[in-house]
Amino acid sequence: MNVLIVYAHPEPRSLNGSLKDFSVKRLRETGHTVQVSDLYAMNWKASLDASDSLAPATGDRFDPSLASKYAFENGLQSADIAAEQAKLKWADAVILQFPLWWFSMPAIMKGWVERVYAYGFAYGVGEHSDARWGDRYGEGTLAGKRAMLVVTTGGWESHYSPRGINGPIDDVLFPIQHGILYYPGLDVLPPFLVYRTSRIDEAKYTEVRDALGERLDNLWKTTPIPFRPQNGGDYRIPELTLKEDIAPGRTGLGVHVK
Amino acid sequence: MNVLIVYAHPEPRSLNGSLKDFSVKRLRETGHTVQVSDLYAMNWKASLDASDSLAPATGDRFDPSLASKYAFENGLQSADIAAEQAKLKWADAVILQFPLWWFSMPAIMKGWVERVYAYGFAYGVGEHSDARWGDRYGEGTLAGKRAMLVVTTGGWESHYSPRGINGPIDDVLFPIQHGILYYPGLDVLPPFLVYRTSRIDEAKYTEVRDALGERLDNLWKTTPIPFRPQNGGDYRIPELTLKEDIAPGRTGLGVHVK
Repeated sequence: MNVLIVYAHPEPRSLNGSLKDFSVKRLRETGHTVQVSDLYAMNWKASLDASDSLAPATGDRFDPSLASKYAFENGLQSADIAAEQAKLKWADAVILQFPLWWFSMPAIMKGWVERVYAYGFAYGVGEHSDARWGDRYGEGTLAGKRAMLVVTTGGWESHYSPRGINGPIDDVLFPIQHGILYYPGLDVLPPFLVYRTSRIDEAKYTEVRDALGERLDNLWKTTPIPFRPQNGGDYRIPELTLKEDIAPGRTGLGVHVK
Repeated sequence: MNVLIVYAHPEPRSLNGSLKDFSVKRLRETGHTVQVSDLYAMNWKASLDASDSLAPATGDRFDPSLASKYAFENGLQSADIAAEQAKLKWADAVILQFPLWWFSMPAIMKGWVERVYAYGFAYGVGEHSDARWGDRYGEGTLAGKRAMLVVTTGGWESHYSPRGINGPIDDVLFPIQHGILYYPGLDVLPPFLVYRTSRIDEAKYTEVRDALGERLDNLWKTTPIPFRPQNGGDYRIPELTLKEDIAPGRTGLGVHVK
Protein backbone atom coordinates (compact mmCIF):
# COMPACT_ATOMS: atom_id res chain seq x y z
CA MET A 1 0.00 0.00 0.00
CA ASN A 2 1.00 3.66 -0.35
CA VAL A 3 1.70 5.60 2.81
CA LEU A 4 2.22 9.36 3.07
CA ILE A 5 3.90 10.65 6.23
CA VAL A 6 3.45 14.37 6.80
CA TYR A 7 6.01 15.28 9.38
CA ALA A 8 6.85 18.47 11.27
CA HIS A 9 9.88 18.83 13.52
CA PRO A 10 12.76 21.25 13.00
CA GLU A 11 15.48 18.84 14.24
CA PRO A 12 16.23 15.57 12.42
CA ARG A 13 18.14 14.24 15.46
CA SER A 14 15.06 14.59 17.71
CA LEU A 15 12.82 11.89 19.14
CA ASN A 16 10.36 12.80 16.41
CA GLY A 17 13.06 12.50 13.75
CA SER A 18 14.06 9.05 15.01
CA LEU A 19 10.48 7.82 15.11
CA LYS A 20 9.83 9.15 11.61
CA ASP A 21 12.93 7.39 10.24
CA PHE A 22 11.87 4.22 12.01
CA SER A 23 8.37 4.41 10.50
CA VAL A 24 9.71 4.82 6.97
CA LYS A 25 12.01 1.83 7.42
CA ARG A 26 9.38 -0.39 9.02
CA LEU A 27 6.75 0.40 6.40
CA ARG A 28 9.20 -0.28 3.55
CA GLU A 29 10.37 -3.52 5.16
CA THR A 30 6.79 -4.69 5.32
CA GLY A 31 6.23 -4.06 1.63
CA HIS A 32 4.70 -0.61 1.54
CA THR A 33 5.69 2.38 -0.57
CA VAL A 34 6.35 5.50 1.46
CA GLN A 35 6.53 9.20 0.70
CA VAL A 36 7.48 11.73 3.36
CA SER A 37 6.52 15.38 3.38
CA ASP A 38 9.14 16.65 5.82
CA LEU A 39 7.73 20.15 6.16
CA TYR A 40 10.71 21.80 7.84
CA ALA A 41 13.17 20.19 5.40
CA MET A 42 10.96 21.33 2.51
CA ASN A 43 10.89 24.86 3.96
CA TRP A 44 7.11 24.62 3.62
CA LYS A 45 5.37 28.00 3.26
CA ALA A 46 3.14 28.14 6.33
CA SER A 47 0.99 31.20 5.72
CA LEU A 48 -1.94 31.05 3.31
CA ASP A 49 -2.11 34.17 1.13
CA ALA A 50 -2.95 35.49 -2.33
CA SER A 51 0.30 34.12 -3.80
CA ASP A 52 -1.05 30.57 -3.39
CA SER A 53 -2.94 31.11 -6.64
CA LEU A 54 -1.12 31.67 -9.93
CA ALA A 55 -4.13 33.51 -11.33
CA PRO A 56 -3.25 37.05 -12.40
CA ALA A 57 -3.98 39.64 -9.72
CA THR A 58 -7.20 41.53 -10.42
CA GLY A 59 -7.02 44.10 -7.64
CA ASP A 60 -10.17 42.57 -6.20
CA ARG A 61 -10.53 41.80 -2.53
CA PHE A 62 -8.69 38.56 -1.70
CA ASP A 63 -11.21 35.98 -0.52
CA PRO A 64 -9.29 32.90 0.64
CA SER A 65 -12.10 30.45 -0.19
CA LEU A 66 -13.00 31.86 -3.59
CA ALA A 67 -9.36 32.24 -4.64
CA SER A 68 -8.70 28.65 -3.60
CA LYS A 69 -11.76 27.44 -5.55
CA TYR A 70 -10.75 29.30 -8.69
CA ALA A 71 -7.14 28.13 -8.54
CA PHE A 72 -8.15 24.51 -7.87
CA GLU A 73 -10.70 24.40 -10.70
CA ASN A 74 -8.42 26.07 -13.22
CA GLY A 75 -5.11 24.36 -12.52
CA LEU A 76 -3.70 27.57 -11.11
CA GLN A 77 -2.63 26.40 -7.69
CA SER A 78 0.95 27.01 -6.68
CA ALA A 79 3.08 23.93 -7.45
CA ASP A 80 3.77 23.00 -3.81
CA ILE A 81 0.04 22.78 -3.09
CA ALA A 82 -0.75 20.66 -6.16
CA ALA A 83 2.13 18.30 -5.32
CA GLU A 84 0.79 17.65 -1.82
CA GLN A 85 -2.72 17.04 -3.15
CA ALA A 86 -1.28 14.49 -5.58
CA LYS A 87 0.46 12.71 -2.69
CA LEU A 88 -2.81 12.60 -0.74
CA LYS A 89 -4.64 11.12 -3.73
CA TRP A 90 -1.83 8.59 -4.22
CA ALA A 91 -1.83 7.50 -0.57
CA ASP A 92 -3.85 4.66 0.91
CA ALA A 93 -2.93 5.86 4.39
CA VAL A 94 -1.78 9.22 5.72
CA ILE A 95 0.20 9.66 8.92
CA LEU A 96 0.54 13.09 10.46
CA GLN A 97 3.46 13.15 12.89
CA PHE A 98 4.26 16.12 15.10
CA PRO A 99 5.06 17.31 18.63
CA LEU A 100 2.01 18.78 20.36
CA TRP A 101 2.82 22.49 20.68
CA TRP A 102 0.30 24.54 22.62
CA PHE A 103 -2.29 21.80 22.37
CA SER A 104 -2.28 21.59 18.58
CA MET A 105 -0.06 20.85 15.60
CA PRO A 106 2.94 23.10 14.85
CA ALA A 107 2.15 26.18 12.76
CA ILE A 108 4.05 24.80 9.77
CA MET A 109 1.71 21.79 9.66
CA LYS A 110 -1.39 23.91 10.25
CA GLY A 111 -0.26 25.89 7.21
CA TRP A 112 0.06 22.67 5.25
CA VAL A 113 -3.59 21.92 6.04
CA GLU A 114 -4.79 25.43 5.22
CA ARG A 115 -3.02 25.59 1.87
CA VAL A 116 -3.37 21.97 0.66
CA TYR A 117 -7.01 21.64 1.75
CA ALA A 118 -8.33 23.65 -1.18
CA TYR A 119 -11.96 24.50 -1.86
CA GLY A 120 -13.16 21.72 -4.16
CA PHE A 121 -10.52 19.35 -2.83
CA ALA A 122 -11.09 19.10 0.93
CA TYR A 123 -14.16 21.29 1.38
CA GLY A 124 -16.91 22.67 -0.80
CA VAL A 125 -17.27 19.15 -2.23
CA GLY A 126 -20.61 17.54 -3.15
CA GLU A 127 -24.18 18.71 -3.33
CA HIS A 128 -26.23 20.44 -0.67
CA SER A 129 -29.84 19.31 -0.41
CA ASP A 130 -32.44 18.34 2.17
CA ALA A 131 -30.67 15.01 2.61
CA ARG A 132 -27.01 15.99 2.53
CA TRP A 133 -24.80 18.92 3.39
CA GLY A 134 -21.97 18.35 0.97
CA ASP A 135 -19.56 15.42 1.03
CA ARG A 136 -17.83 15.86 4.34
CA TYR A 137 -17.41 14.19 7.72
CA GLY A 138 -17.03 10.65 6.47
CA GLU A 139 -17.41 11.39 2.75
CA GLY A 140 -15.34 13.42 0.32
CA THR A 141 -12.20 13.39 -1.79
CA LEU A 142 -10.20 11.26 0.67
CA ALA A 143 -12.91 8.72 1.52
CA GLY A 144 -11.70 5.13 1.68
CA LYS A 145 -8.24 6.11 2.89
CA ARG A 146 -6.97 5.82 6.44
CA ALA A 147 -5.24 8.34 8.67
CA MET A 148 -3.38 8.20 11.96
CA LEU A 149 -1.76 10.79 14.19
CA VAL A 150 1.65 10.15 15.76
CA VAL A 151 1.98 12.77 18.48
CA THR A 152 4.60 13.45 21.14
CA THR A 153 4.04 15.66 24.15
CA GLY A 154 6.06 16.86 27.12
CA GLY A 155 3.09 16.55 29.47
CA TRP A 156 2.24 13.46 31.47
CA GLU A 157 -0.45 11.00 30.42
CA SER A 158 -2.47 11.87 33.56
CA HIS A 159 -2.53 15.54 32.53
CA TYR A 160 -4.44 14.41 29.41
CA SER A 161 -6.65 11.85 31.18
CA PRO A 162 -10.46 12.18 31.36
CA ARG A 163 -10.18 14.59 34.33
CA GLY A 164 -6.67 15.89 33.58
CA ILE A 165 -5.99 19.62 33.49
CA ASN A 166 -5.02 19.80 29.80
CA GLY A 167 -8.28 18.15 28.79
CA PRO A 168 -8.75 14.53 27.70
CA ILE A 169 -6.41 13.81 24.79
CA ASP A 170 -9.36 12.71 22.61
CA ASP A 171 -10.96 16.12 23.11
CA VAL A 172 -7.70 18.03 22.58
CA LEU A 173 -7.18 16.18 19.30
CA PHE A 174 -10.84 16.37 18.19
CA PRO A 175 -10.35 19.49 16.03
CA ILE A 176 -7.61 17.61 14.18
CA GLN A 177 -8.97 14.06 14.08
CA HIS A 178 -12.58 15.01 13.39
CA GLY A 179 -12.21 18.50 11.93
CA ILE A 180 -9.18 17.97 9.69
CA LEU A 181 -8.94 14.21 9.01
CA TYR A 182 -12.52 12.90 9.11
CA TYR A 183 -13.87 16.03 7.39
CA PRO A 184 -12.52 15.24 3.87
CA GLY A 185 -13.42 11.57 4.32
CA LEU A 186 -10.43 9.87 5.96
CA ASP A 187 -11.04 6.98 8.35
CA VAL A 188 -9.18 7.97 11.51
CA LEU A 189 -7.35 5.32 13.52
CA PRO A 190 -6.74 5.82 17.24
CA PRO A 191 -3.69 8.09 17.67
CA PHE A 192 -0.23 6.86 18.63
CA LEU A 193 0.81 8.98 21.60
CA VAL A 194 4.12 9.47 23.37
CA TYR A 195 3.91 11.37 26.67
CA ARG A 196 6.57 13.00 28.87
CA THR A 197 9.15 13.09 26.13
CA SER A 198 11.87 14.62 28.31
CA ARG A 199 12.07 11.38 30.28
CA ILE A 200 12.65 8.96 27.44
CA ASP A 201 15.81 6.90 27.96
CA GLU A 202 17.10 4.07 25.77
CA ALA A 203 14.86 1.43 27.33
CA LYS A 204 11.77 3.58 27.05
CA TYR A 205 12.66 4.53 23.49
CA THR A 206 12.85 0.84 22.51
CA GLU A 207 9.43 0.29 24.06
CA VAL A 208 7.93 3.27 22.22
CA ARG A 209 9.50 2.26 18.92
CA ASP A 210 8.25 -1.32 19.20
CA ALA A 211 4.73 -0.13 20.04
CA LEU A 212 4.78 2.18 17.02
CA GLY A 213 6.02 -0.69 14.85
CA GLU A 214 3.07 -2.78 15.92
CA ARG A 215 0.66 0.04 15.09
CA LEU A 216 2.25 0.35 11.63
CA ASP A 217 2.02 -3.41 11.07
CA ASN A 218 -1.69 -3.20 11.88
CA LEU A 219 -2.44 -0.08 9.87
CA TRP A 220 -4.94 -1.96 7.68
CA LYS A 221 -6.41 -4.07 10.47
CA THR A 222 -7.02 -1.47 13.18
CA THR A 223 -10.63 -0.37 13.66
CA PRO A 224 -11.08 3.35 12.97
CA ILE A 225 -12.65 5.70 15.51
CA PRO A 226 -16.40 5.36 14.78
CA PHE A 227 -17.17 9.03 14.13
CA ARG A 228 -20.74 9.55 12.96
CA PRO A 229 -21.06 10.29 9.21
CA GLN A 230 -22.75 13.63 8.63
CA ASN A 231 -25.16 12.34 5.98
CA GLY A 232 -25.83 8.96 7.59
CA GLY A 233 -29.07 9.92 9.32
CA ASP A 234 -27.82 10.89 12.79
CA TYR A 235 -27.87 14.65 12.13
CA ARG A 236 -30.65 17.07 11.22
CA ILE A 237 -29.95 18.89 7.97
CA PRO A 238 -29.17 21.82 7.64
CA GLU A 239 -28.86 22.47 11.40
CA LEU A 240 -26.33 19.65 11.68
CA THR A 241 -27.27 18.93 15.26
CA LEU A 242 -27.65 15.35 16.47
CA LYS A 243 -31.22 14.11 16.34
CA GLU A 244 -32.91 13.81 19.72
CA ASP A 245 -32.89 10.02 19.77
CA ILE A 246 -29.13 9.85 19.13
CA ALA A 247 -27.06 9.90 22.35
CA PRO A 248 -30.12 11.41 24.05
CA GLY A 249 -29.44 14.16 26.56
CA ARG A 250 -25.68 14.08 26.03
CA THR A 251 -23.48 16.95 24.83
CA GLY A 252 -19.79 17.49 24.19
CA LEU A 253 -17.33 16.17 21.66
CA GLY A 254 -17.78 12.51 22.58
CA VAL A 255 -21.34 12.40 21.20
CA HIS A 256 -19.94 12.44 17.66
CA VAL A 257 -18.44 8.99 18.20
CA LYS A 258 -20.83 6.03 17.90
CA MET B 1 -5.79 51.11 29.58
CA ASN B 2 -3.44 49.50 27.06
CA VAL B 3 -4.92 47.08 24.56
CA LEU B 4 -2.96 44.82 22.22
CA ILE B 5 -4.84 43.40 19.24
CA VAL B 6 -3.14 40.44 17.60
CA TYR B 7 -4.82 40.07 14.26
CA ALA B 8 -4.51 37.56 11.43
CA HIS B 9 -6.25 37.98 8.08
CA PRO B 10 -4.54 38.32 4.71
CA GLU B 11 -7.03 40.85 3.29
CA PRO B 12 -7.48 44.32 4.87
CA ARG B 13 -10.80 44.79 2.99
CA SER B 14 -12.32 41.69 4.63
CA LEU B 15 -14.97 41.44 7.34
CA ASN B 16 -12.11 40.77 9.75
CA GLY B 17 -10.24 43.83 8.53
CA SER B 18 -13.30 46.03 9.00
CA LEU B 19 -13.96 44.71 12.49
CA LYS B 20 -10.32 45.18 13.46
CA ASP B 21 -10.33 48.79 12.23
CA PHE B 22 -13.58 49.38 14.08
CA SER B 23 -12.11 47.96 17.33
CA VAL B 24 -9.04 50.19 17.13
CA LYS B 25 -11.22 53.25 16.58
CA ARG B 26 -13.72 52.39 19.31
CA LEU B 27 -11.03 51.65 21.89
CA ARG B 28 -9.19 54.90 21.12
CA GLU B 29 -12.42 56.89 21.23
CA THR B 30 -13.11 55.51 24.69
CA GLY B 31 -9.73 56.59 25.99
CA HIS B 32 -7.58 53.50 25.55
CA THR B 33 -4.16 53.16 23.96
CA VAL B 34 -4.03 50.50 21.25
CA GLN B 35 -1.27 48.59 19.53
CA VAL B 36 -2.02 46.18 16.69
CA SER B 37 0.13 43.25 15.67
CA ASP B 38 -1.21 42.74 12.16
CA LEU B 39 0.58 39.48 11.49
CA TYR B 40 0.06 39.32 7.72
CA ALA B 41 1.02 42.99 7.29
CA MET B 42 4.13 42.37 9.42
CA ASN B 43 4.99 39.32 7.30
CA TRP B 44 5.27 37.45 10.59
CA LYS B 45 7.58 34.42 10.46
CA ALA B 46 5.25 31.54 11.23
CA SER B 47 7.61 28.60 11.69
CA LEU B 48 9.58 28.18 14.89
CA ASP B 49 13.17 27.12 14.19
CA ALA B 50 16.79 27.48 15.31
CA SER B 51 17.06 30.95 13.80
CA ASP B 52 14.73 32.28 16.52
CA SER B 53 17.75 32.44 18.80
CA LEU B 54 20.68 34.74 18.07
CA ALA B 55 23.03 32.49 20.07
CA PRO B 56 25.93 31.23 17.92
CA ALA B 57 25.25 27.81 16.40
CA THR B 58 27.05 25.05 18.30
CA GLY B 59 26.29 22.12 16.06
CA ASP B 60 24.33 20.56 18.92
CA ARG B 61 20.92 19.07 18.44
CA PHE B 62 18.26 21.84 18.26
CA ASP B 63 15.92 21.48 21.21
CA PRO B 64 13.09 24.03 20.80
CA SER B 65 12.46 24.40 24.55
CA LEU B 66 16.08 24.63 25.66
CA ALA B 67 17.02 26.99 22.82
CA SER B 68 14.06 29.19 23.74
CA LYS B 69 15.05 29.17 27.43
CA TYR B 70 18.66 30.10 26.68
CA ALA B 71 17.72 32.87 24.27
CA PHE B 72 15.11 34.30 26.66
CA GLU B 73 17.44 34.29 29.67
CA ASN B 74 20.38 35.76 27.80
CA GLY B 75 18.70 38.45 25.72
CA LEU B 76 19.37 36.49 22.55
CA GLN B 77 15.86 36.18 21.18
CA SER B 78 15.25 37.38 17.65
CA ALA B 79 14.02 40.98 17.67
CA ASP B 80 10.50 40.22 16.43
CA ILE B 81 9.91 37.84 19.34
CA ALA B 82 11.21 40.25 21.99
CA ALA B 83 9.06 43.05 20.54
CA GLU B 84 5.87 40.98 20.85
CA GLN B 85 6.73 39.98 24.42
CA ALA B 86 7.18 43.68 25.26
CA LYS B 87 3.73 44.43 23.81
CA LEU B 88 2.20 41.65 25.92
CA LYS B 89 3.84 43.01 29.07
CA TRP B 90 2.67 46.52 28.17
CA ALA B 91 -0.93 45.45 27.57
CA ASP B 92 -3.71 45.41 30.13
CA ALA B 93 -5.88 43.46 27.71
CA VAL B 94 -5.06 41.29 24.71
CA ILE B 95 -7.47 40.58 21.88
CA LEU B 96 -6.75 37.78 19.43
CA GLN B 97 -8.81 38.27 16.27
CA PHE B 98 -8.90 35.71 13.47
CA PRO B 99 -11.12 33.67 11.14
CA LEU B 100 -11.57 30.09 12.37
CA TRP B 101 -9.70 27.98 9.78
CA TRP B 102 -9.99 24.24 10.21
CA PHE B 103 -11.29 24.65 13.75
CA SER B 104 -8.33 26.63 15.03
CA MET B 105 -6.41 29.87 14.51
CA PRO B 106 -4.60 30.51 11.21
CA ALA B 107 -1.08 29.08 11.01
CA ILE B 108 0.47 32.53 11.07
CA MET B 109 -1.08 33.20 14.48
CA LYS B 110 -0.22 29.74 15.78
CA GLY B 111 3.35 30.59 14.85
CA TRP B 112 3.07 33.85 16.78
CA VAL B 113 2.11 31.82 19.86
CA GLU B 114 4.86 29.24 19.37
CA ARG B 115 7.63 31.80 18.90
CA VAL B 116 6.53 34.55 21.34
CA TYR B 117 5.57 32.13 24.13
CA ALA B 118 9.18 31.47 25.13
CA TYR B 119 10.36 29.13 27.87
CA GLY B 120 10.65 31.38 30.92
CA PHE B 121 8.09 33.80 29.52
CA ALA B 122 4.91 31.79 28.94
CA TYR B 123 5.93 28.35 30.22
CA GLY B 124 8.62 26.94 32.46
CA VAL B 125 7.74 29.73 34.93
CA GLY B 126 7.70 29.29 38.72
CA GLU B 127 8.65 26.54 41.10
CA HIS B 128 7.55 22.91 41.06
CA SER B 129 6.84 21.42 44.48
CA ASP B 130 4.27 19.27 46.27
CA ALA B 131 1.92 22.25 46.33
CA ARG B 132 2.39 23.78 42.89
CA TRP B 133 3.30 22.74 39.39
CA GLY B 134 4.86 25.94 38.14
CA ASP B 135 3.02 29.22 37.61
CA ARG B 136 0.52 28.32 34.94
CA TYR B 137 -3.23 27.98 34.36
CA GLY B 138 -4.27 31.12 36.20
CA GLU B 139 -0.82 32.25 37.29
CA GLY B 140 2.27 33.31 35.35
CA THR B 141 3.85 36.19 33.48
CA LEU B 142 0.55 37.54 32.12
CA ALA B 143 -1.53 37.22 35.32
CA GLY B 144 -3.77 40.18 36.06
CA LYS B 145 -4.31 40.95 32.37
CA ARG B 146 -7.43 40.13 30.37
CA ALA B 147 -7.84 38.41 27.03
CA MET B 148 -10.66 37.95 24.56
CA LEU B 149 -11.04 36.12 21.27
CA VAL B 150 -12.81 37.75 18.32
CA VAL B 151 -13.53 34.89 15.91
CA THR B 152 -15.38 34.67 12.63
CA THR B 153 -16.53 31.43 11.04
CA GLY B 154 -18.33 30.38 7.89
CA GLY B 155 -20.31 27.70 9.74
CA TRP B 156 -23.70 28.22 11.31
CA GLU B 157 -24.18 28.78 15.02
CA SER B 158 -26.15 25.51 15.26
CA HIS B 159 -23.17 23.60 13.82
CA TYR B 160 -21.21 24.74 16.91
CA SER B 161 -24.06 24.26 19.40
CA PRO B 162 -23.89 21.73 22.28
CA ARG B 163 -24.92 18.88 19.94
CA GLY B 164 -23.68 20.43 16.70
CA ILE B 165 -21.46 18.46 14.34
CA ASN B 166 -18.41 20.71 14.61
CA GLY B 167 -18.39 20.39 18.39
CA PRO B 168 -19.60 23.00 20.89
CA ILE B 169 -17.74 26.26 20.25
CA ASP B 170 -16.49 26.33 23.87
CA ASP B 171 -14.87 22.94 23.34
CA VAL B 172 -13.46 23.85 19.92
CA LEU B 173 -11.87 26.96 21.44
CA PHE B 174 -10.72 25.26 24.66
CA PRO B 175 -7.17 24.56 23.41
CA ILE B 176 -6.86 28.30 22.69
CA GLN B 177 -8.79 29.85 25.56
CA HIS B 178 -7.54 27.49 28.27
CA GLY B 179 -4.33 26.14 26.72
CA ILE B 180 -2.93 29.35 25.20
CA LEU B 181 -4.57 32.26 27.06
CA TYR B 182 -5.27 30.99 30.58
CA TYR B 183 -2.00 29.01 30.69
CA PRO B 184 0.33 32.03 31.07
CA GLY B 185 -2.12 33.69 33.47
CA LEU B 186 -4.55 35.71 31.35
CA ASP B 187 -8.15 36.07 32.52
CA VAL B 188 -10.23 34.97 29.53
CA LEU B 189 -13.46 36.77 28.70
CA PRO B 190 -16.22 34.97 26.79
CA PRO B 191 -15.37 35.04 23.07
CA PHE B 192 -16.98 37.39 20.56
CA LEU B 193 -18.22 35.17 17.75
CA VAL B 194 -19.50 35.89 14.26
CA TYR B 195 -21.08 32.93 12.48
CA ARG B 196 -22.02 32.33 8.84
CA THR B 197 -19.82 35.10 7.53
CA SER B 198 -20.81 34.61 3.89
CA ARG B 199 -24.31 35.86 4.70
CA ILE B 200 -23.41 39.18 6.32
CA ASP B 201 -25.14 42.09 4.60
CA GLU B 202 -25.06 45.76 5.61
CA ALA B 203 -27.78 45.39 8.24
CA LYS B 204 -26.18 42.35 9.79
CA TYR B 205 -22.77 44.02 9.71
CA THR B 206 -24.12 46.99 11.67
CA GLU B 207 -25.57 44.61 14.23
CA VAL B 208 -22.29 42.70 14.57
CA ARG B 209 -20.25 45.89 14.81
CA ASP B 210 -22.50 47.34 17.50
CA ALA B 211 -22.38 44.14 19.52
CA LEU B 212 -18.58 44.14 19.28
CA GLY B 213 -18.51 47.79 20.36
CA GLU B 214 -20.48 46.90 23.46
CA ARG B 215 -18.08 44.07 24.29
CA LEU B 216 -15.14 46.48 23.92
CA ASP B 217 -16.86 49.07 26.12
CA ASN B 218 -17.25 46.40 28.80
CA LEU B 219 -13.78 44.91 28.51
CA TRP B 220 -13.02 45.75 32.15
CA LYS B 221 -16.47 44.90 33.51
CA THR B 222 -17.13 41.53 31.87
CA THR B 223 -16.76 38.50 34.13
CA PRO B 224 -14.03 36.15 32.89
CA ILE B 225 -14.66 32.46 32.21
CA PRO B 226 -14.15 30.86 35.65
CA PHE B 227 -11.46 28.34 34.69
CA ARG B 228 -10.06 26.49 37.71
CA PRO B 229 -6.57 27.67 38.77
CA GLN B 230 -4.11 24.80 38.69
CA ASN B 231 -2.61 25.54 42.11
CA GLY B 232 -5.86 26.55 43.82
CA GLY B 233 -6.58 23.21 45.44
CA ASP B 234 -8.89 21.61 42.86
CA TYR B 235 -6.17 19.44 41.26
CA ARG B 236 -3.91 16.70 42.60
CA ILE B 237 -0.24 17.52 42.14
CA PRO B 238 1.69 16.24 40.22
CA GLU B 239 -1.00 14.15 38.46
CA LEU B 240 -2.96 17.32 37.69
CA THR B 241 -6.25 15.50 37.69
CA LEU B 242 -9.30 17.00 39.37
CA LYS B 243 -9.78 15.79 42.93
CA GLU B 244 -12.65 13.33 43.39
CA ASP B 245 -14.90 15.83 45.21
CA ILE B 246 -14.62 18.42 42.42
CA ALA B 247 -17.29 18.00 39.72
CA PRO B 248 -17.67 14.41 40.94
CA GLY B 249 -18.14 11.78 38.26
CA ARG B 250 -17.90 14.29 35.41
CA THR B 251 -15.33 14.29 32.60
CA GLY B 252 -14.62 16.38 29.52
CA LEU B 253 -13.43 19.91 28.94
CA GLY B 254 -16.27 21.58 30.82
CA VAL B 255 -15.10 20.26 34.20
CA HIS B 256 -12.24 22.78 34.15
CA VAL B 257 -14.74 25.64 34.46
CA LYS B 258 -16.13 26.31 37.95
